[in-house]
Amino acid sequence: MSNIGKNVPRVDGWPKILGEPIYTGDMKLPGMLHGAIHRIAHAHARIRGVDVSGAKAAPGVRAVVTGRAFAEMPGVDPYFGMIFPDQPLLAIDKVRFIGEAVAAVAADTQEQAESAAALVRVDYDPLPVVDDVLAAARPGSPILHDIVRNGPLFPFIQASHHGPDSNICTHYRQRVGDVDRAFAEAERVFEDTFTSPPAQHAHLEPHAALARVDRGGHVTVWTSTQSPSSSRLWLAAMFGAPQNQIRVISPYLGGGYGGKIYLKMEPFAVLLAKVTRRPVRAVIRREEVFYVCSKHGAAVKLKTAVSPEGRISAQQFEIYYDCGAYAESGPRVAWKAASTANGPYKIPNCRIDSHLVYTNKTPAGAFRGFGVPQITFAQESHMDQVAEYLGRDPVDLRMEYALQEGDRYPTGEVLDCVSIKESLQGAADAFGWKGNAKASSPDSEGGLARGRGVGLAIKTTATPSGSEATVILNPDGSAEVFVSTVEMGQGCDTVLSQMTAENLGISVEQVRLVRPDTDATPFDMGTASSRSTYHMGNAIHRATAEIRGELFAAASELLEVPPDQLDLAGGKVFVQGFPDRGLSLPEVFLKAMSKPPAGYLIGRGAFQTQATLEDPETGHTDKLSVNWTSSAAFAEVEVDPETGAVRVTRLHLAGNVGRAINMRHCEQQLVGAATLNVGLTLFEHMDYRDGQLTNGSFLEYMMPTFDDVPGDFVPVVLEEAHPTGPFGAKGVGETGCIATTPAIINAIHDAVGVRVRDLPVTPEKVLRAIREAKEAEAPA
Amino acid sequence: MSNIGKNVPRVDGWPKILGEPIYTGDMKLPGMLHGAIHRIAHAHARIRGVDVSGAKAAPGVRAVVTGRAFAEMPGVDPYFGMIFPDQPLLAIDKVRFIGEAVAAVAADTQEQAESAAALVRVDYDPLPVVDDVLAAARPGSPILHDIVRNGPLFPFIQASHHGPDSNICTHYRQRVGDVDRAFAEAERVFEDTFTSPPAQHAHLEPHAALARVDRGGHVTVWTSTQSPSSSRLWLAAMFGAPQNQIRVISPYLGGGYGGKIYLKMEPFAVLLAKVTRRPVRAVIRREEVFYVCSKHGAAVKLKTAVSPEGRISAQQFEIYYDCGAYAESGPRVAWKAASTANGPYKIPNCRIDSHLVYTNKTPAGAFRGFGVPQITFAQESHMDQVAEYLGRDPVDLRMEYALQEGDRYPTGEVLDCVSIKESLQGAADAFGWKGNAKASSPDSEGGLARGRGVGLAIKTTATPSGSEATVILNPDGSAEVFVSTVEMGQGCDTVLSQMTAENLGISVEQVRLVRPDTDATPFDMGTASSRSTYHMGNAIHRATAEIRGELFAAASELLEVPPDQLDLAGGKVFVQGFPDRGLSLPEVFLKAMSKPPAGYLIGRGAFQTQATLEDPETGHTDKLSVNWTSSAAFAEVEVDPETGAVRVTRLHLAGNVGRAINMRHCEQQLVGAATLNVGLTLFEHMDYRDGQLTNGSFLEYMMPTFDDVPGDFVPVVLEEAHPTGPFGAKGVGETGCIATTPAIINAIHDAVGVRVRDLPVTPEKVLRAIREAKEAEAPA
Repeated sequence: MSNIGKNVPRVDGWPKILGEPIYTGDMKLPGMLHGAIHRIAHAHARIRGVDVSGAKAAPGVRAVVTGRAFAEMPGVDPYFGMIFPDQPLLAIDKVRFIGEAVAAVAADTQEQAESAAALVRVDYDPLPVVDDVLAAARPGSPILHDIVRNGPLFPFIQASHHGPDSNICTHYRQRVGDVDRAFAEAERVFEDTFTSPPAQHAHLEPHAALARVDRGGHVTVWTSTQSPSSSRLWLAAMFGAPQNQIRVISPYLGGGYGGKIYLKMEPFAVLLAKVTRRPVRAVIRREEVFYVCSKHGAAVKLKTAVSPEGRISAQQFEIYYDCGAYAESGPRVAWKAASTANGPYKIPNCRIDSHLVYTNKTPAGAFRGFGVPQITFAQESHMDQVAEYLGRDPVDLRMEYALQEGDRYPTGEVLDCVSIKESLQGAADAFGWKGNAKASSPDSEGGLARGRGVGLAIKTTATPSGSEATVILNPDGSAEVFVSTVEMGQGCDTVLSQMTAENLGISVEQVRLVRPDTDATPFDMGTASSRSTYHMGNAIHRATAEIRGELFAAASELLEVPPDQLDLAGGKVFVQGFPDRGLSLPEVFLKAMSKPPAGYLIGRGAFQTQATLEDPETGHTDKLSVNWTSSAAFAEVEVDPETGAVRVTRLHLAGNVGRAINMRHCEQQLVGAATLNVGLTLFEHMDYRDGQLTNGSFLEYMMPTFDDVPGDFVPVVLEEAHPTGPFGAKGVGETGCIATTPAIINAIHDAVGVRVRDLPVTPEKVLRAIREAKEAEAPA
Repeated sequence: MSNIGKNVPRVDGWPKILGEPIYTGDMKLPGMLHGAIHRIAHAHARIRGVDVSGAKAAPGVRAVVTGRAFAEMPGVDPYFGMIFPDQPLLAIDKVRFIGEAVAAVAADTQEQAESAAALVRVDYDPLPVVDDVLAAARPGSPILHDIVRNGPLFPFIQASHHGPDSNICTHYRQRVGDVDRAFAEAERVFEDTFTSPPAQHAHLEPHAALARVDRGGHVTVWTSTQSPSSSRLWLAAMFGAPQNQIRVISPYLGGGYGGKIYLKMEPFAVLLAKVTRRPVRAVIRREEVFYVCSKHGAAVKLKTAVSPEGRISAQQFEIYYDCGAYAESGPRVAWKAASTANGPYKIPNCRIDSHLVYTNKTPAGAFRGFGVPQITFAQESHMDQVAEYLGRDPVDLRMEYALQEGDRYPTGEVLDCVSIKESLQGAADAFGWKGNAKASSPDSEGGLARGRGVGLAIKTTATPSGSEATVILNPDGSAEVFVSTVEMGQGCDTVLSQMTAENLGISVEQVRLVRPDTDATPFDMGTASSRSTYHMGNAIHRATAEIRGELFAAASELLEVPPDQLDLAGGKVFVQGFPDRGLSLPEVFLKAMSKPPAGYLIGRGAFQTQATLEDPETGHTDKLSVNWTSSAAFAEVEVDPETGAVRVTRLHLAGNVGRAINMRHCEQQLVGAATLNVGLTLFEHMDYRDGQLTNGSFLEYMMPTFDDVPGDFVPVVLEEAHPTGPFGAKGVGETGCIATTPAIINAIHDAVGVRVRDLPVTPEKVLRAIREAKEAEAPA
């Protein structure tokens, strides 16, 4: 194959280097106004009134809209939500987190809009604040939502809502085997709580949308979104508009990581454009992203039983996801991530309870890894604890319990092409695993303690979900691909171009992608969950298969060979095995197509995956995910026992990608995702005190810099072609995230003998743990 | 049917009334430059040199490009042409008509560009000029094209090119029966030459294009074109670009009438944008349209034989179409129009020779009627001459010779649903035809002579040609239609919306058209030749049939009725005959579709018509046109014998439209087309003297005003469903054009006894004819 598996340079590389793409925040329309939002400064309060008179009188102001005014507009639904319509676009009677939008302003300039927004006055009665997920889950906690608003979708999730007397939004259950008996018979039970904080996606480009509403009511929105097709439907629902009256265009994104799925600034831009009858661009300030969306914080109470025979006999997960003030995509996170809480292991008895809990914090949404890293952190910590208890090498222990091809997952489905052992072995070989540092060699030097650790993980992809592609092959051999997959830096444009080129026997340079626009490109569920290469790749496969069929039928008569003996490569249709007996694409078009000379060939491909949840009580399902990815990470750290500072010096990670369409891209995705999680492990957290975010700016929110990237950083791309993947490919975007955190955590334990169970692993926490350990060891 | 045959208001009505649409000439892009063209002031000359130094030094000028500079750019083809690549974008070694483009200028403002264009100096050697089509066709005439450039398409037409020693570009032949014998045996032979002048489309919006070329070479062109899909291919060929690197967007047009088919300002805008690396908008001045494209002038030498039995026994057409300096679409005009020169009559012996002839004039292109009015003028004049000779009522005579259902046309095909007699009778009834005025009643009053006349005509539509449509049905019952049909005032958006609504059982308001954009809407050959309702309507039929099939399959299980017993109307799928036993569209989507809730149904429809020319020597063909339209016009005129002034007082015309999708639109099309031809009959001509256009502005070029519109103006829409038409529809755009001219001409003869054979029928010509007739009558 001439286009697959090659390190094709990014097709969006040169345009971006040349500064050509126009991002949403740079767009201008004639007569355009600018939007800004007044955000509340209290985390939980009942609104008595909103005074917008000062804002309205400010220079350049064209409109100020409150939640109540929006709610009173005819036909609109002021509440929205991906699963539950629990979130008002603008607060109406209550605010539930600091930074919640209370009023939206449109003015002639951005400065005027922001100045005016600051003049909005909110009169409110403070309510008790709850910002701790475990406290919020307890009876008696202050309640955020005293009304439960149900939407039509996801009946199972809806049914699990706890109702108006609890902050527990949803509760997912999984039951396998006899957990109570296993615990009763255990020789040793490990029981710990592992906590992960909320965190920020920190995409370079903040949320932005530009809306134009024509006088007939037709809406065009340019927006920095990962989900243009779905956003159209959500906007239609909110504004009571027919779906065909909303057009969503998604230019290149300056990063997404899950933070740009679902509605963000789009409704504000549309609302202000409707009110002012002018185009409105609403771009938030860089630091406002902290009040739009976050990663789910989580507390995972994990109990692991070891039987007298030295077997891991049972596990019990009690998971509390912190969804902040509104559910957003949380119900799916709490369901999908928890359904693989066991990770990649054969464990006979298991009980999983995953709760999604409202707190007075920024709403949490999708975040690269979709809830899995928070649980894997717990599971993989316990695996090391068990290994230590049993005196086993942690890799050996994992290898022993690892699921393999044909095994049945606890949820019920048979695993296929998941390569767990191969990932573990591949990363171990690359890293040169010789056991923990303490076990293998004295490895401390210069006062720094060195340690090594491993993490192993498994992840599903969004199922059910659908993607469609339309492909055109022109008579001159050039092709156009119409897809709604969003290029946000991950390389989809390149990979989809490669697959199209390969299927049509042309070069990548001959392929051009038409970028996401609901008036041009067909439906795609969203660019998320490492699903695009697999789903959209399959859609392109089907679309190009239509074209190949027509082309071969036409060429068959000319070459006097049955269509099934023809092939396509190098811009030629030729007889299989006889590359010289062929015709160029222009020749086939000119001589054989029954269309006029201007005609082209067009192919459509729709690809839809299916999943079921058969028994909400046990979590049993025939199909949880259309494919599964596994990954393993090995970290080496240096810990300074004097300061507690941790430095990751080596990080080798392996991921099974099915088949690498673009090897360099796969490696970059692994490295990028792992780097993200180095930051989430060591530095990043949105720090709340009584509902107040104390580090809500990029001066105070610590992220990794290039200095924090391991010097010896090796991605290992493992290939085992997936039977239903396009060219055997699966996804890779999230693969590098999940195993990284436990590898680092386990390496720290190896280095200094302490185990931190509360992310991030700041120097203070390490130091405190070291001191506590020393105190515990010291004679009383 | 709830949407078909109804007078649905124009869907583009309100936006246009509210001033919302942005036409090409109003568009702006950041950094945009403006283009202007230096046009030559001599009709035929060899270029010695072009001095652009003055223009380059003028304020604000960014680029000045000559034909030679363009020709030297790598990869470009400086010559273009729909059939023959005979036209340089910018003159290289010769100029062939006054107003031909010699240099293109880009500057910061439109004024600067035009001022600079005026500073270009051309050094040339004048060549002899030929601007008369008959003179140009004669041996020994000055030759315009001493090199014949052949393109790959239309091999038959190519083969007919006369070569470098003649101005005859193409020669189409038709031979039926034994013409020579019929003429030899004739009792009376009528032999006359009928001439029509070149004329101007006079669309309100002049030609305009805006081009942006990105650094990778990808070109976007917004252009006032009737043929966006085809223009993409033509631009790719000219600039040596892959077809997928050209995007053509066609906004609403301010009229077209054929003048905006094929490349007009697009290549200039692209060329200047490539050279300056800035967006360039090239909009010509209102009067420059006279130097871009025109209607074909024609001289038709017609001989008609009447046998001793009083039968029309033979006809011989010697046709000379004046294509001006370049072939453009002329070869198709001279072929297609001449192939129906006989008109709607059974005449046993016929010889047709149709020549396309180069002259030193503005190139002629498509013009509403596509060459047929020029010939019908001759044929219908002779029909009246024969009727007078035989003492027959002109309607009776036409009725006797009129072809009918199942008759074989001289070219060989069997006519289907053409309703010639019905058109004639329908218009006669409406008008209250009681024979010619002179024959029926003394009808002169107040010094004005009153007369009545009839015209009967037949026309084909563009065959072969192809159209594609994509239709989306959203879960909420709203629909999107992706078509490249161009709305230029003719009402296609409304009619295509009606057909979509009817097929999907929704209302017109629930349908939205996505407007032509090669990055969004599929291929269409062009909006021309009255073909859109039929071709694109059929494409929509097929697209919606796919959707209906999927919808019925899904609803079948829910309603427990086989799919073929279901129907779709009022936003519901229901059991045929039991409208209450049904489900709304949202219910069907929610309950039965195997797609996720966000999914929709998508249908694709491609429709391609076929034609053949089997024998170039006889013109025989199995299929000339996928459908035929007939029309009849009856005019009453008042002629002032003192001044020769003609006034059309009554005009009733009937056209067979197959089935009227929108009755009011059909009536408006008939009236609009007939009004256009009132102007072309009485006023309009591009007046050349030695190659110099003497009336090249809208101050001097006379067009009809509202005062010239007949007071009693009645369109009669005749319906006879066409078996392959969508809902039985055919086209109607050109139907009103063709019979109008002979009806007026014959009415003038009826009024004052003179017959003008040289259009337009100016007062001078009428007066001169009256005087000549009197002189001829007067005793010597």
